[in-house]
Amino acid sequence: MFKIVIIGSGNVATHLIQAFSKNETVDLIQVFARKKKNLLPFIAPAKIVDNLSDLKEADLYIIAVSDDAIEQVAKQISFENKLVVHTSGSYDFSWISNKNRKGVFYPLQTFSKNKAVDFKTIPLCLEAENEADYAVLEKIAKSVSDKVYQINYRQRQSLHVAAVFVNNFVNHLYHIGSEICDNNQVDFGILKPLIEETANKINQLPPKEAQTGPAKRQDFNTIERHLNFISDDNQKNIYQMLTQSILSNGKKL
Amino acid sequence: MFKIVIIGSGNVATHLIQAFSKNETVDLIQVFARKKKNLLPFIAPAKIVDNLSDLKEADLYIIAVSDDAIEQVAKQISFENKLVVHTSGSYDFSWISNKNRKGVFYPLQTFSKNKAVDFKTIPLCLEAENEADYAVLEKIAKSVSDKVYQINYRQRQSLHVAAVFVNNFVNHLYHIGSEICDNNQVDFGILKPLIEETANKINQLPPKEAQTGPAKRQDFNTIERHLNFISDDNQKNIYQMLTQSILSNGKKL
Repeated sequence: MFKIVIIGSGNVATHLIQAFSKNETVDLIQVFARKKKNLLPFIAPAKIVDNLSDLKEADLYIIAVSDDAIEQVAKQISFENKLVVHTSGSYDFSWISNKNRKGVFYPLQTFSKNKAVDFKTIPLCLEAENEADYAVLEKIAKSVSDKVYQINYRQRQSLHVAAVFVNNFVNHLYHIGSEICDNNQVDFGILKPLIEETANKINQLPPKEAQTGPAKRQDFNTIERHLNFISDDNQKNIYQMLTQSILSNGKKL
Repeated sequence: MFKIVIIGSGNVATHLIQAFSKNETVDLIQVFARKKKNLLPFIAPAKIVDNLSDLKEADLYIIAVSDDAIEQVAKQISFENKLVVHTSGSYDFSWISNKNRKGVFYPLQTFSKNKAVDFKTIPLCLEAENEADYAVLEKIAKSVSDKVYQINYRQRQSLHVAAVFVNNFVNHLYHIGSEICDNNQVDFGILKPLIEETANKINQLPPKEAQTGPAKRQDFNTIERHLNFISDDNQKNIYQMLTQSILSNGKKL
């Protein structure tokens, strides 16, 4: 069994802790959190430390903290020549101190405290400095997920940016949709089958082929009616910019 | 059984034809299409007419044509005092000629030719000039869908605008995500579990609570790294505008 230590207590860390808790490949021997109580629902108190100098020797250290804390935390791991990875989508592994062997263990999913996820379905994007370490990372990753990918830094950055578009921005558009419904006394729930089908559709058609709507069919009448209907300036600007983007995209065909 | 006639041969019309084809409440007696052959996969050739003056007498005429053709088509229905509805999300029923009783039968879903949908799950938004007609529309709607709503014009307009945000624009963001992946030799499929989870999450949390990402946590470092990574000006403008919108939204809390 591989001995692993997880450093962090945020959304990614707590989901990793739960995924590794019942596992025959991995022994989660310790977790670091500045505030121990954040982790009490997820792991035995005896395994939690709040001082990095108390870390035990392990085969893998997973640093699951905010991007700008990675460098500082990595420096404080007192061991040398150990495999140390971070979970960031946008940082190179060079932020991990040179005294250890570096890698990345990036779970490409949106984690919220109050929403369980099936870890088996989460894509894990791995990178390591050398082949032997990659092999270890891959074994550990495959023990918790069915979707494990070898992804270099440039690819990972592109996934992280693309994820902002297909997750953060998409969710924000859901929010705008819910605001428009609220302002007109309509149940946002009426839109949920449409939202679900929109997400499902791209399993059968590329998004470009799945595109429908007034911008796609260059229906300028409807676009004008919509712009007249929208009273919020920010919503109007977003409507105009995305409509223009779909129109330009059509011309590229 | 209610006798109905469907006018049109586009995506909405063909999905309605299929939904009404095997139905114990409704007898789909006729369909109008300018080009008969478009409908041959969906209905017996004898039931298709290509001249509006050949329409038979029916309890309900469903005009499922493009918005700007509704008025012209409605005028050409030679019968009087019949229930005539259109399927538009953004047009008032006043576009239907005064000689008939008016209503709306608006299916709130994205239809594509090459993608089957389960009609039972499609929200049908109904409106009629009088209660008796509404009752008929409701019976007919409930024979094909489990989700039937009485929705007035203002509400329907708001749903149509909201649908552009949560469907058309969301799908366009999927397309941008796929372009970013393609440009960096990454399989867009890696993002599909994230896309699915993003859509599922709002069944448990309101979109505002489900929001994550650099803009939500005011992580300006990551935002700057992303903007440096994106080379396409249009993608960069969209990134900036939606980031700004999430940031302003956070301040409203």
